[in-house]
Amino acid sequence: MGRTRLTPEHHKKRIEKLCGQLDEEGIETFLVFSSKNIFYLTGLSFIPTERPIILILHKGDVSFFVPSLEIDHVQHQVPFVSEVYSYFEYPDETHPMTYFKRILMKEIKVSPGKVASEAPGAPAYWGYKGPTLEDTTGLKFKLLPDIIMDMRVIKEPEEIELMRESSKWADRAHKYLQEFTEVGANEIDVTIRASTQGSQDMVSELGDDYHPTGFSLFPAIAVYRGQIGPNSYFPHALSRGLVFKKGDTLVTGASSDVYGVHSELERTMFMGEPSKRQRELFDAMMAAQDAALDAAGPGVYCSDVDKAARNAFNEHGVIQLVRHHTGHALGMEGHERPFLDLGSEDVLEPGMIFSCEPGIYEKGLGGFRHSDTFVVTDDGIEVLTMYPRDLESLIIE
Amino acid sequence: MGRTRLTPEHHKKRIEKLCGQLDEEGIETFLVFSSKNIFYLTGLSFIPTERPIILILHKGDVSFFVPSLEIDHVQHQVPFVSEVYSYFEYPDETHPMTYFKRILMKEIKVSPGKVASEAPGAPAYWGYKGPTLEDTTGLKFKLLPDIIMDMRVIKEPEEIELMRESSKWADRAHKYLQEFTEVGANEIDVTIRASTQGSQDMVSELGDDYHPTGFSLFPAIAVYRGQIGPNSYFPHALSRGLVFKKGDTLVTGASSDVYGVHSELERTMFMGEPSKRQRELFDAMMAAQDAALDAAGPGVYCSDVDKAARNAFNEHGVIQLVRHHTGHALGMEGHERPFLDLGSEDVLEPGMIFSCEPGIYEKGLGGFRHSDTFVVTDDGIEVLTMYPRDLESLIIE
Repeated sequence: MGRTRLTPEHHKKRIEKLCGQLDEEGIETFLVFSSKNIFYLTGLSFIPTERPIILILHKGDVSFFVPSLEIDHVQHQVPFVSEVYSYFEYPDETHPMTYFKRILMKEIKVSPGKVASEAPGAPAYWGYKGPTLEDTTGLKFKLLPDIIMDMRVIKEPEEIELMRESSKWADRAHKYLQEFTEVGANEIDVTIRASTQGSQDMVSELGDDYHPTGFSLFPAIAVYRGQIGPNSYFPHALSRGLVFKKGDTLVTGASSDVYGVHSELERTMFMGEPSKRQRELFDAMMAAQDAALDAAGPGVYCSDVDKAARNAFNEHGVIQLVRHHTGHALGMEGHERPFLDLGSEDVLEPGMIFSCEPGIYEKGLGGFRHSDTFVVTDDGIEVLTMYPRDLESLIIE
Repeated sequence: MGRTRLTPEHHKKRIEKLCGQLDEEGIETFLVFSSKNIFYLTGLSFIPTERPIILILHKGDVSFFVPSLEIDHVQHQVPFVSEVYSYFEYPDETHPMTYFKRILMKEIKVSPGKVASEAPGAPAYWGYKGPTLEDTTGLKFKLLPDIIMDMRVIKEPEEIELMRESSKWADRAHKYLQEFTEVGANEIDVTIRASTQGSQDMVSELGDDYHPTGFSLFPAIAVYRGQIGPNSYFPHALSRGLVFKKGDTLVTGASSDVYGVHSELERTMFMGEPSKRQRELFDAMMAAQDAALDAAGPGVYCSDVDKAARNAFNEHGVIQLVRHHTGHALGMEGHERPFLDLGSEDVLEPGMIFSCEPGIYEKGLGGFRHSDTFVVTDDGIEVLTMYPRDLESLIIE
C-alpha cells in the first residue's frame, strides 16, 4: 500500500499526533476547513464548492459537517468516521451555520475556552457567504491557522515514497514531451500528447495500485507553459500556443499526482545545436544547481543553499540574470514553506522535500532552469527526479 | 476579437466602471489581490505563488506591485499599465510589504481615509506569511471584498460570446467522450482521450483565434469523475478508475476555457438499453430541467426556478432523491453567486449566466443529472450548450 497510497491507519496516526498537540494547548475541539488539510488528516477527497465542509476533531473523535450531496461519500471514504452531521444545501432557507451551531452546542457539547479553528469561519469560496464561528456560536475560537501545515513540513517515510513514485511518472511523461517536441509543432499539442501518453502509462502500469484522489484530471503531466525561444525569458510564462523553431531555448515542466503528492521536474532543452551563449548560460545554471545540491543537507540553513547557487552564478558572471530564489518545499501543494531563499531563517531537516531550481534569464535569448525534487535524509539528500540533466541529453535534433 | 478574447479597451472599460463606483464611495486607491479579479480587470494572467502580486488602482491609473520574475511579463501583457513596481523575492532579507509601504506612501502618496482593498492583506497562499495592510502602513483600509465579484455577476455581451464559444467546445469534447465510452473501457482513459481530441480540435480549428490564458492545461475537457454505475449515486463522486459495465448509469462533465470563461455541460447516459426504473428517473430529471428552464427569465426569483424543478420532482414522486439545488451562476469561476436555490433572495437579470442541473440520486442504481448553461436575455433565456438531451441520443450500444 505504502508506495502509491496511505492507509486509514496512517491517517489515524496523523490525527492522533495533531490531537496530542491540541491537548497540550488545552484544546478539546478543533475545526478544519481546508480541503487539502482534510484530505491529509482523513483521506477524504471532495470537490470544494459554495457548500461548507467542516472536519470536527473532538477529544480524538472524527466527525464531519457536510451538505447532503456528500453524506454517503464521507461514509464511503473515511472508515473511522464517528458522525456525519449534515445540512441540505447552501444557501437554503436556513443558513448551514445555524445548523452547525446546534450541532456544536447541543450534540457535541463543546466547552468554552477549549475550542479552536484553522480559520475564523468557512472560506468565501465559489459564492459562499457566512458568519464567523464566533458570530455563530458566541464562543471565542483560538485561531491555529498553521498547526496542520507545520505538521506537513516534515514528510513521513510513507509520504516520501509517494513523492518517489510521483517523480518516477514525472520522468516518464517528460520522456514523451522531449520525444514529441520538433520544429513546427505547437506547444499545446505536444503538452496534451505527452500528458496523455504519460498518464496512460501510469494508469495501465500501476493497475490496481493506481488510486486517483480527484485532485488532478490527468494522473501525469509534462508541459510547456510558453517558455519557448525568447519567451522563455519570462520565468513564469504561460502557454501561448507557440510553435517550436530551430535555435529555441525551452523550459519544460512535469509532475504526477500520487495520492495528492506532486513532484516537480523541469528541464532546459534546445532546438538543435546550442549557440556559444546558450552553452555558457546552461553551464552556469548547471553549476548553480550542483552547488545548491552539494550545499543542501540536514542542519544546513535554507539561506546557505540559496547562497551556494548565487555564488556559482556570481563566479560565472551572470548574477544579474537571476530573478528568483533557488527552491521551495513541496508536497501536497505546488509550493510550500520553507523556501531556499537568502532571507529564510529555516534549517533543512530530515523529511523535508524541496525543489532545487536556480534560474537565469537573458532577454531576447531565454530562460535557463532545471528543477529537481530532493528529500533531506539523515546524512545528506536524495534527488528523486532522475531525468538526465546534462546538455547533450537535452538537445532536440 | 470578441468571440474568443477581450480587448485591452474592454478591460479598460471595466476598470473605468469600477473606478466610477470607487469614486462614489470617496475611494482614491484600491488594491486587488485575487488573480481572477486581476485578470478580469486587466487581462494579466500569472501563476499565483508565495510571491504577492498586487493591482493598484489609483485615481484611474493602473499599476502593479510584483516580484522580479513577473516584471517584464506584466509589461508584455498589459499595454495600458502606468507603473510596474517590484521587489526581488519572497521571503528575501526584506519583506515585500516593507517595499510596498514605501511605494504607497512615498511614490503613489495615498491619502488616509481614501484607501480600500479587497482583502486585509496578501492571501496566505503557498507558504506566504505577511502583515496586514493596516499593520504595514498604519492606515485604515476600507474592505470591499465583493465589489469586483458584484460586477462579475452581470456578464457583458462580449463575455456572453466567450461563454457561447466555450459551450461549443464543451459540446465537441463531449461528443468524443460519448464516442469513446464502451463496455470494458476505463473512465480515466476515456477522459484523457476525449479531452485530448476535443482540445486538439479547438486549437487547430480556432487557429490564431485561440488565446490560451494559462488557467487551464487543456483547452477543452470532457470527463468522467467516478459517476459510473452505482457510484453515480454520489453527486460529487471523484474519478476512481472505474470500468464501464452493461447497465451502468453514467453522469459526465465537459467544459472549455475561452479567455478564462468556462461553460458547464453534463449528461446522464446509459450503457445499453435502460431499465424501466432508469427510464423513470431519467424522465423525472428531464421534466425537472424542462420546468426550471421554462420558469427562468428576467425578473424571476432564483428561488422560483428551484421550486419549479422541485415541483416536477414532486409530481414524479422522487423529491426524496434530491440532494442539491437546481443551479448556480458561472463565468470565470466554476460556481458563482447567485444560486438557483429555495433560499436565494436574488432575481434573474439579463446578462446573468447559470447552470441548470436538477438531479436525483437512487442508492444502488445511480445519479440522474443533466447540466446546461443558459444566459438570461431581455425577454427570456437562451441555452448555450447544445448537446442532445433526449434519452435515445444518450444510450451507448
